[in-house]
Amino acid sequence: MRPYPLLVLLTALFSCASRAEVVAEASSPGKVLRVQLSIDEGRASYSVLRLGEVVIAPSRLGFLLRDTEKLERNLQLASQHSSSFDSSWEQPWGERRHVRNHYSELRVRLSETIKLKRSFDVVFRLYDDGLGFRYEFPQQDQLSDVIIDDELTEFVVAEPATAWWIPAGEWNRYEYLYQRTPLAEVTQAHTPMTIRSESGLHIAFHEAALVDYSGMWLRRTEGQRFRAQLSPASEGWKVRRKAPFHTPWRTLQIADSAGGLYQSDLILNLNEPNVLGDVSWFQPAKYVGIWWELHLDQTTWASGARHGATTENARRHIDFAARNGFRGVLIEGWNVGWDGAWFGNGNDFDFSKATPDFDLRAVAAYAKSRGVHLVGHHETGGAVSHYERQLDAALDLYRALDVDVIKTGYVADAGQIERNDGDGRVHREWHDGQWMARHHLKVVREAAKRRIAINPHEPIKDTGLRRTYPNWVAREGARGMEYGAWGNPPNPPEHEINLVFTRMLSGPMDYTPGILSLQGRGQAIQTTLAKQLALYVLLYSPIQMVPDLPEHYEKHSTAFQFIKDVPTDWAETHVLNGEIGDFVTIARKDRGSDDWYLGAGTDEHGRMLPVTLSFLDPGRRYTAEIYRDGDDAHWRTAPFEFVAEQREVSSRDRLLIRLAPGGGQAIRFKALPMRSRR
Amino acid sequence: MRPYPLLVLLTALFSCASRAEVVAEASSPGKVLRVQLSIDEGRASYSVLRLGEVVIAPSRLGFLLRDTEKLERNLQLASQHSSSFDSSWEQPWGERRHVRNHYSELRVRLSETIKLKRSFDVVFRLYDDGLGFRYEFPQQDQLSDVIIDDELTEFVVAEPATAWWIPAGEWNRYEYLYQRTPLAEVTQAHTPMTIRSESGLHIAFHEAALVDYSGMWLRRTEGQRFRAQLSPASEGWKVRRKAPFHTPWRTLQIADSAGGLYQSDLILNLNEPNVLGDVSWFQPAKYVGIWWELHLDQTTWASGARHGATTENARRHIDFAARNGFRGVLIEGWNVGWDGAWFGNGNDFDFSKATPDFDLRAVAAYAKSRGVHLVGHHETGGAVSHYERQLDAALDLYRALDVDVIKTGYVADAGQIERNDGDGRVHREWHDGQWMARHHLKVVREAAKRRIAINPHEPIKDTGLRRTYPNWVAREGARGMEYGAWGNPPNPPEHEINLVFTRMLSGPMDYTPGILSLQGRGQAIQTTLAKQLALYVLLYSPIQMVPDLPEHYEKHSTAFQFIKDVPTDWAETHVLNGEIGDFVTIARKDRGSDDWYLGAGTDEHGRMLPVTLSFLDPGRRYTAEIYRDGDDAHWRTAPFEFVAEQREVSSRDRLLIRLAPGGGQAIRFKALPMRSRR
Repeated sequence: MRPYPLLVLLTALFSCASRAEVVAEASSPGKVLRVQLSIDEGRASYSVLRLGEVVIAPSRLGFLLRDTEKLERNLQLASQHSSSFDSSWEQPWGERRHVRNHYSELRVRLSETIKLKRSFDVVFRLYDDGLGFRYEFPQQDQLSDVIIDDELTEFVVAEPATAWWIPAGEWNRYEYLYQRTPLAEVTQAHTPMTIRSESGLHIAFHEAALVDYSGMWLRRTEGQRFRAQLSPASEGWKVRRKAPFHTPWRTLQIADSAGGLYQSDLILNLNEPNVLGDVSWFQPAKYVGIWWELHLDQTTWASGARHGATTENARRHIDFAARNGFRGVLIEGWNVGWDGAWFGNGNDFDFSKATPDFDLRAVAAYAKSRGVHLVGHHETGGAVSHYERQLDAALDLYRALDVDVIKTGYVADAGQIERNDGDGRVHREWHDGQWMARHHLKVVREAAKRRIAINPHEPIKDTGLRRTYPNWVAREGARGMEYGAWGNPPNPPEHEINLVFTRMLSGPMDYTPGILSLQGRGQAIQTTLAKQLALYVLLYSPIQMVPDLPEHYEKHSTAFQFIKDVPTDWAETHVLNGEIGDFVTIARKDRGSDDWYLGAGTDEHGRMLPVTLSFLDPGRRYTAEIYRDGDDAHWRTAPFEFVAEQREVSSRDRLLIRLAPGGGQAIRFKALPMRSRR
Repeated sequence: MRPYPLLVLLTALFSCASRAEVVAEASSPGKVLRVQLSIDEGRASYSVLRLGEVVIAPSRLGFLLRDTEKLERNLQLASQHSSSFDSSWEQPWGERRHVRNHYSELRVRLSETIKLKRSFDVVFRLYDDGLGFRYEFPQQDQLSDVIIDDELTEFVVAEPATAWWIPAGEWNRYEYLYQRTPLAEVTQAHTPMTIRSESGLHIAFHEAALVDYSGMWLRRTEGQRFRAQLSPASEGWKVRRKAPFHTPWRTLQIADSAGGLYQSDLILNLNEPNVLGDVSWFQPAKYVGIWWELHLDQTTWASGARHGATTENARRHIDFAARNGFRGVLIEGWNVGWDGAWFGNGNDFDFSKATPDFDLRAVAAYAKSRGVHLVGHHETGGAVSHYERQLDAALDLYRALDVDVIKTGYVADAGQIERNDGDGRVHREWHDGQWMARHHLKVVREAAKRRIAINPHEPIKDTGLRRTYPNWVAREGARGMEYGAWGNPPNPPEHEINLVFTRMLSGPMDYTPGILSLQGRGQAIQTTLAKQLALYVLLYSPIQMVPDLPEHYEKHSTAFQFIKDVPTDWAETHVLNGEIGDFVTIARKDRGSDDWYLGAGTDEHGRMLPVTLSFLDPGRRYTAEIYRDGDDAHWRTAPFEFVAEQREVSSRDRLLIRLAPGGGQAIRFKALPMRSRR
């Protein structure tokens, strides 16, 4: 018996009930979640209950505003409105084709009772597997130019919990190892932050539809009480907007299992539908490129004797892509500007001018002749205004060369993005502040006009805007495979498993899995061979790199076959098991065929995971092409121990997924021809 | 990253490797587990590795013997022999019909190098999901009358873990609430003791085939080091045997999930096959009786005005059983001897003589006329020698009356069983010492001769002997439902969930679920209505009581229908999800029809558990008769909130199992007639 949490809850409920009055409430469609809005001596707060138990204890709502009184006190409920919605929509590409959007909405208007008599709305959307809420500022004379110094939104977690999180407000943007600590020891975290309570409840905190606002960090103020901490603008405030406007959705995904979090479509559902219309010109695909050799320091971004982006090297990679059926070829370092100290200082970059040893047009023509597409590259070094000034021309150039995907880059310390609007002053902005939120969407919109997809590295976090702008296809925004090359420390075996239940909840990541040499720059990658294959299924992205050196793939041709086979677009996704940071198994159905794929991975501990194949189509038989860890495999001592084997299976079968310490398993279920009925 | 366990392991490995030599080793059939036997300066120890990682660090083997030197030092490996075995066998009744027994065996002979030159064998049987090992004492002149003062077997758990356990050596036998503590805070525990390591590995420690030996407790000696602590004999020693003999199997079930532990057949497989031959005369069934009214103190075991076991009351229960299709009727307190202080002092019991107000033969005849079978009752009050002297006559009486199941009882404080062999001295024995191990088997064997099944309460623990003696059908051996009537504290909502992953790993329990009034003696039972139904699926026994008062079942006729329908014998069992003490869902297939049943339960926290119905037979359609918690149900505030609903489903469907705080869900999947193909 664990009486403690109950006692805490009862105490919280009682002390709250004695002062605050619930003025509005609503339940999710299946009556799983309930939100209650209370007014307590003029202050508004919300609570979340699940199956009758308090999950989020009363948590404050409101704002600190510049040059006017804070918007937080003397509030009353002016009106409330409830509604419900149930519909399905189709993703152009994604983890699943059809998404159901089924919610109950509660809209409350809060008005000040004295002085300025300002009003704002809070809108809650309640799903059975989570909720989102946002503030909406109506047009009103008393509040038209809104300068937000702080958003006062709180999240008070009722039950003691463990958190998986990365620090916010630190120099390395989102590129930290996930920490696992008591929730009460978090300092300031980026979202998604995922927690598991003592009772086994899983909650992921994040936001949806971050548009013209600054990113939300979660700052712990006491105990398990968190407050929204908005990424600051260089002017000192956090956000400046003209009313009417609304904030992003503050979201909680809530499930009894880690897998339940990953299955949730909450973030996408809270974004606006596609505004681009037909986006069939974007094709989910794999790409190779001049990239890993740079991280290995075999060649350089900088020009000179060891320059990677030469015409000849590009042709070699184009040939490799063509030979193996990969659509894209990325070439980094082809343009002018890489020779100085460009990190955090990208003002030398010319986005249209190639180095002398690289003939862009010839390379593009050669790619076309081989049926391969160049993947464009725009590294800004953080000089974003400089990039914006060249943006139209740079995009036009790529469009002219039939480049339809661009990887962008913002390599600069957090808070060191260079904004130079032409007023002669240089502002230093955060990667996730309001200005950068605007910048990223500007690039995405301008690219969309030219039918180009965008894949930013060192980006702003994903908040589901791919629903509205399906050309925003992927991004980095966490420690990627490159840390295997030179990271100190490198990514440990649990890293990708942590990602599935944290970073990946926000959307696709260009992780660049598949280093079959298992070798970085003087250090081993902490993985088995089979796990590298599994990552293509575990870490979703519509564009997946095949990053290792061509000669390494040729050496590991059996494993390489899986990388050639695995698709990057899915009709269905099912999480079969998983614990945050421990292990996970995901099955996905190819959107372009009847085949299914399975990926499983573990941390530094071996696992034997029984799975039923009930996800397979009924009555169909499949050849299971199994790529697994060998019996003695171990990420540290025997990472190349590897078995490829086949068996015929159907949806009635079970498999025991064997994962070595630090290992993984990848399976292609190749659909066999249907037997004719006689 | 959690570097700590690895560091500990490396240190443990290194310090061990520096002194001990591995002299024999073997792997499980699928190379999941490996056991290593080491000799370190003449002392033998074993280790267990799983997927290359140390699970049990080097742990000592040996014995302290009376009147001779301890059998622990100056050992060398005299011989070793490896073999393997793979076969399947059929249970006459059980959680599943077919059991696969697939293991690798390693037999080592250890001999003393000096002095007495005694020898003993250690036999390991390695399965992919666990292992057992036992000592075998061969015939030898130097060691023929073996008096064991202590068994020195150790279990050193390598990785920090949490344990679920009940204390051993305490007065209340096995009837304690399960504690959840760090493993390093366990004092002395009964088995099964279940642990979960920091990395998520689940291990259950227990023993198999406890025959003519004393039960093993686990005493923590330091850190996570445990030593076998044998239940003592009144003579002061622990066990006395003549060589040749062998000990019970010391067992570890090992899985990555809690459900994996429950799926293991290790304990049964380590027992000897059925020695009784055809046992089809035993019929798994439900029974009612004069029992709960006694616990409510509405009637009494003692004779007098409020005596429960009257002829008239028995007829009323027989009618109730006949009307509702229940096979058995238990009548407690029908015989002479209940009027004094019988608790721990049962020498007044006469097992053949009824009280004046109870006509045993008339009641038996009436039962027969209604197609119902009496369930016999032998309460000993702990006066076991007294019982043994009457045993033949008592069994013969029941046989003559066609009673084929007897519930026995041993209500006496632990260590207070009265043994009085006729030498004029009274010995006080433990419920789980060697003498009681012999007693229980004696009763079971004598009963088997008469085609009677035995169901002991306050028993010795289950070690899988039902395989060898299938008439040993169930037992108590944990806090049962009766604690809901008068327990202080009562069983909390997590109790039954704890049982599934601890007590139930040992075998069937006569828990007596199904108190639909949800009411004990002046206290509420901590459950919802639906959870009472779910317990019939969750807590396996081939005999299940339907214990509540007939009028309570008539009041809750909708819920009662499930109790009437649910079978007590299964063809298959699948654990669909579960966490120790948190929640669990189990699906079982009726052995007597095509129907399936599902039970789910939770602790004090509500859950939404998605399950796929892939266990259902393919291509078959079923009516799912769902008995669930209402939307606002809660064990404390709204325990009777309850919904019964139906829908048609197949193996392709998924259900979201809604469990209220303290709640449960029960489903009958009633197979619809097969459609003919045209």
